[in-house]
Amino acid sequence: MNTNVVGVDMGGTKILSAVVDGEGKILGTAKIPTNAKSNTSIVIDRIADCIRKAIDDAHVDKKSIEAIGIGAPAVLDPDTGVVIFAPNLGWKSVPLKSELEARINMPTFVDNDVNVGTLGEHAFGAGQNVENLVGIFVGTGIGGGIVLNGQLFHGASKTAGEIGHIIVKADGPKCGCGRRGCLEALASRTAITKQLQKAIQKKGKKSILTELTNGDLELIRSGTLAKALRSKDKLTIKVFKDITKYLGVGIGSIVNFLNPEMIVLGGGVVEALDETFIKNIRKAAKKYALPDTLKNVQIVAAQLGDNAGVLGAAALARQRLAAG
Amino acid sequence: MNTNVVGVDMGGTKILSAVVDGEGKILGTAKIPTNAKSNTSIVIDRIADCIRKAIDDAHVDKKSIEAIGIGAPAVLDPDTGVVIFAPNLGWKSVPLKSELEARINMPTFVDNDVNVGTLGEHAFGAGQNVENLVGIFVGTGIGGGIVLNGQLFHGASKTAGEIGHIIVKADGPKCGCGRRGCLEALASRTAITKQLQKAIQKKGKKSILTELTNGDLELIRSGTLAKALRSKDKLTIKVFKDITKYLGVGIGSIVNFLNPEMIVLGGGVVEALDETFIKNIRKAAKKYALPDTLKNVQIVAAQLGDNAGVLGAAALARQRLAAG
Repeated sequence: MNTNVVGVDMGGTKILSAVVDGEGKILGTAKIPTNAKSNTSIVIDRIADCIRKAIDDAHVDKKSIEAIGIGAPAVLDPDTGVVIFAPNLGWKSVPLKSELEARINMPTFVDNDVNVGTLGEHAFGAGQNVENLVGIFVGTGIGGGIVLNGQLFHGASKTAGEIGHIIVKADGPKCGCGRRGCLEALASRTAITKQLQKAIQKKGKKSILTELTNGDLELIRSGTLAKALRSKDKLTIKVFKDITKYLGVGIGSIVNFLNPEMIVLGGGVVEALDETFIKNIRKAAKKYALPDTLKNVQIVAAQLGDNAGVLGAAALARQRLAAG
Repeated sequence: MNTNVVGVDMGGTKILSAVVDGEGKILGTAKIPTNAKSNTSIVIDRIADCIRKAIDDAHVDKKSIEAIGIGAPAVLDPDTGVVIFAPNLGWKSVPLKSELEARINMPTFVDNDVNVGTLGEHAFGAGQNVENLVGIFVGTGIGGGIVLNGQLFHGASKTAGEIGHIIVKADGPKCGCGRRGCLEALASRTAITKQLQKAIQKKGKKSILTELTNGDLELIRSGTLAKALRSKDKLTIKVFKDITKYLGVGIGSIVNFLNPEMIVLGGGVVEALDETFIKNIRKAAKKYALPDTLKNVQIVAAQLGDNAGVLGAAALARQRLAAG
């Protein structure tokens, strides 16, 4: 019997779910708003609904579903399935796994969304043929995940993969985490926007971004940045030179230290830009990696895009179920 | 039958070997000069001699020896046992494993000395009860090794563990590797000495080091630094504050990224100093690690001292033999 799993991509604004078969084929999907402000119990009811809707959409027997995987934007304990803290959901200490299992009566496995995204690339995306890879997702912040020997690596405190908080420039700019010089403080979209705002608003530099955002630079999104780069906006190009450099420093450090087979780059900023950005990051990484260390290391773009969350969650469900 | 292995610690000036039983007990040892300037073949003859001498010293039957492990100060391929490059030995492309096997007719396994030192701490030293640890050895340079799931992790290009070349301060001081801001450029004994020389010779700062080295600051060794610290030499204390900070930055990055169960600190500089140094490094790491990431991470001093090399090489032999 062909068995399926359901992967759930739990976001602050929407919940996506998909029935996924053993080959990573999506058989049915569902999407509903999270309504994160509702009572926690109601939000978990909605997740359960979203799972049922995907199963309906897939026209498969509920019995063919072996397990549920969920990626959540949260600090959580992957073993107990308890969400410790999820700022975007307003959750603290929520036993997501057990609450969902009570509602849908199927084995449920939970992990951090970025870990799940990395596992997805390993199972069904760019990293299908490698056993050791590091995922780096550049968006509002910079998140990451580590797959070693084909399995998510969680580390001693279950916090492994905080790539955004590798310190690349001691005493550098302040990071949201309170420390200084973290990769996230130098190369996330937040860092990019801050630099652009400073240059335009404080130094009076000209940029097409003023026009693209109708003067409200708070509206800069990854798509806006992509447009500015395509228009060859000098200021944006200059800022991206810096960003690329610091991503190169961070990746260089990872390559020197862990020497994974692959670095997969994803997230809003990477998705909005073209292969040139990856090429430039690769070039920058080469400057900071020791000779020969990069020899067998691929630096590539993530492939799953919007499906990364549900496919990664499906891979999580299958892998954790197999691990028993 | 109790089986033994021989661990060899191959250095630029001396070769140490030890017969080691399954519990890590040293049954016999030998030590001979490397005479690195001799013909490669003669140096390998000497290694074979040193192994035979340790077996004699142990008074065990040669048949009780199952395998030989060697740690060498080299870039090498642990699978083929070929030394690619060993500056201290003047070696390039030396098939150490096969050459030794031809001489002593026993399965021989070769790895980098720092990897071997890390494995030794895992097998018989500070890290006996953990599965995932990172070794950091601070001496002339900064070397490191990674043990994951109880096994040395070599990475895609077999270069994993280059902790000295994690970049902690982009655009920082120049490193021996040609890059800027590597941990090694900021916290190795070479970096310490450079800073002290600059302060004393260029800025005219006073320090007991002038007296301790009879004015020749090139003679600063780890022991000299330890003496200066014990004498509460202000300049040395100040320089060590910086060193400690950068080690904290590097360890913080490793903890945020990989979150190993343990960081083992060894090498000449660490060995020469007392527990206060480790305590200060721990404190510094806490500043740069994210909250909770350090919760289950131990930061401790290496325990094997002078025996690290032979015991680590013995552990290597046993592990690689078991892996088949």
